[in-house]
Amino acid sequence: MQKLTIGVDIGGTNTSFGIVNRQGTILYTHTIRTQTHDKVEDFISELCREIKSGLNTIAEKFELIGIGIGAPNANYLNGTIEDAANLRWKGKIELSKLVNQHLNAPVFVTNDANAAAIGEKIYGGAKNMNDFIVITLGTGLGSGIVSHGKLLYGHDGFAGELGHTIVEPNGRACGCGRSGCLETYVSATGLVRSVAEQLSQSFTYSVLRDIPFNKITSKDVATAAENGDLVAIHALKKTGRILGEAIANIIAITSPEAIFLFGGLTKAGKILLDEVKYHMDKNILFVYKNKVTLLISQLPDDAAILGASALVWTEFE
Amino acid sequence: MQKLTIGVDIGGTNTSFGIVNRQGTILYTHTIRTQTHDKVEDFISELCREIKSGLNTIAEKFELIGIGIGAPNANYLNGTIEDAANLRWKGKIELSKLVNQHLNAPVFVTNDANAAAIGEKIYGGAKNMNDFIVITLGTGLGSGIVSHGKLLYGHDGFAGELGHTIVEPNGRACGCGRSGCLETYVSATGLVRSVAEQLSQSFTYSVLRDIPFNKITSKDVATAAENGDLVAIHALKKTGRILGEAIANIIAITSPEAIFLFGGLTKAGKILLDEVKYHMDKNILFVYKNKVTLLISQLPDDAAILGASALVWTEFE
Repeated sequence: MQKLTIGVDIGGTNTSFGIVNRQGTILYTHTIRTQTHDKVEDFISELCREIKSGLNTIAEKFELIGIGIGAPNANYLNGTIEDAANLRWKGKIELSKLVNQHLNAPVFVTNDANAAAIGEKIYGGAKNMNDFIVITLGTGLGSGIVSHGKLLYGHDGFAGELGHTIVEPNGRACGCGRSGCLETYVSATGLVRSVAEQLSQSFTYSVLRDIPFNKITSKDVATAAENGDLVAIHALKKTGRILGEAIANIIAITSPEAIFLFGGLTKAGKILLDEVKYHMDKNILFVYKNKVTLLISQLPDDAAILGASALVWTEFE
Repeated sequence: MQKLTIGVDIGGTNTSFGIVNRQGTILYTHTIRTQTHDKVEDFISELCREIKSGLNTIAEKFELIGIGIGAPNANYLNGTIEDAANLRWKGKIELSKLVNQHLNAPVFVTNDANAAAIGEKIYGGAKNMNDFIVITLGTGLGSGIVSHGKLLYGHDGFAGELGHTIVEPNGRACGCGRSGCLETYVSATGLVRSVAEQLSQSFTYSVLRDIPFNKITSKDVATAAENGDLVAIHALKKTGRILGEAIANIIAITSPEAIFLFGGLTKAGKILLDEVKYHMDKNILFVYKNKVTLLISQLPDDAAILGASALVWTEFE
């Protein structure tokens, strides 16, 4: 009898789930809106109803071995979501317990970056690695650290907040209420802030002067840079330098064999990635030199679902 | 039959060892000079001869379960010392193998800071903790990270070089060949450099203006500060601020339940420690607030020997 898992990706707008086999094939997938219900209980009811419908479509006999859920501010140790800024339900959400009221299988919960890391280990480029880091570059910057073959959770389940290490004391305001966090420089948002900074400091011609701040995307910046736009190139290089320096620092702490970059910003192209590599190599401590590989995630677009389902396989292997 | 371990602390000047029981009582201890021999083989011969003499003094029957060695640039995974700057023997020293030519017991090797961390877990203040960090503040800054109950070694055995994270790009020259490493600011040496910096930047009266740079000790700075010397106070506060900021950052990466400070600089008193605590709390991400305790190591003065011997107990428990 084949074993199957459910991978769920809860985002601020949409929640997607997939029924996934051990090879990482998604046999069924469906998406619902995340925030249409006032009560989180009603959202979970709808989600579990859809999962059951999905399971009914599987013709072959199967055993559901578990449900993995990736969600913002999710806590693996408690099975909860705690104070997620971009969800309407405040405080502590007892995610595992709520799902178990509808589905009779073990539920494992973690945040998006940890799910990406474990997905990389089960289905991606880290299959044979025990010590690596996945850095997710989206609206913010997340990180999942795998150490001695296991996700590093820390004593409270919230380890891996590389995006909230302060790289510039009194630097840019961060959503967390502090200043100078890595993600205020290195993320899609950080890149756009670096564009605005450069627009403020020079007279250099740029197509980006004609787009409102709120409308500039990292794709706009990448395209402009490919066309030789100096402001765009400068912003990408600044992002790359700060990420390269941060990677050199985290290598000195956990000594991984590889760093995987994941997410939309990795598509900003060669200018960014060359700069990351250059500044990582320039700043790395000699004992780690030529030992750490910088890689792009090998997970496909359904990475969030796969990562969440991978969490289940790791529990049983 | 009682079980015993040997703890060996190899330093640049002296090498001490102790015969230690499970309670952390040192039954016998002896010190030899580290660097009197041209060949490392002769040094190991002398060390093992002394260890055997020591074992002969133990009246009760015993079983020697292992030998733990703390040494600079030691690699747990390989049982080696690799390119230690302050030892006369260059390249890779096959420490475990050499010791096993004389003593028939398993040999475990790690660096000083990791030994301090594991000592804290076996004999000190971290007995019931699985996630904590020990920061050693001596001539340099070392760190031992315990995660999920185990030392974090990384894929090559060299994780935990917090002292070589760069906190000030293009900052002070570091012994590692780069600039701006944490230990160039936060260490006994870093403190004296901050004194000199402050002497250069102000006309403020200070007793430290009458001591050559090479003669100023962290104890001189601490004593001056207690007597109200403003230069000394400024230097201690700068050291404390940078350490507090670095602690806030490493908490965001590994989420420990406690940080232990260890070594000579912790005796520099309340001004330094208050400042560390203040800036740690000021810069900590909200999810970790009031969850992490800052503590002074509870290991006694023989900590290096105890830490090395603790490495053996952890292997068998």
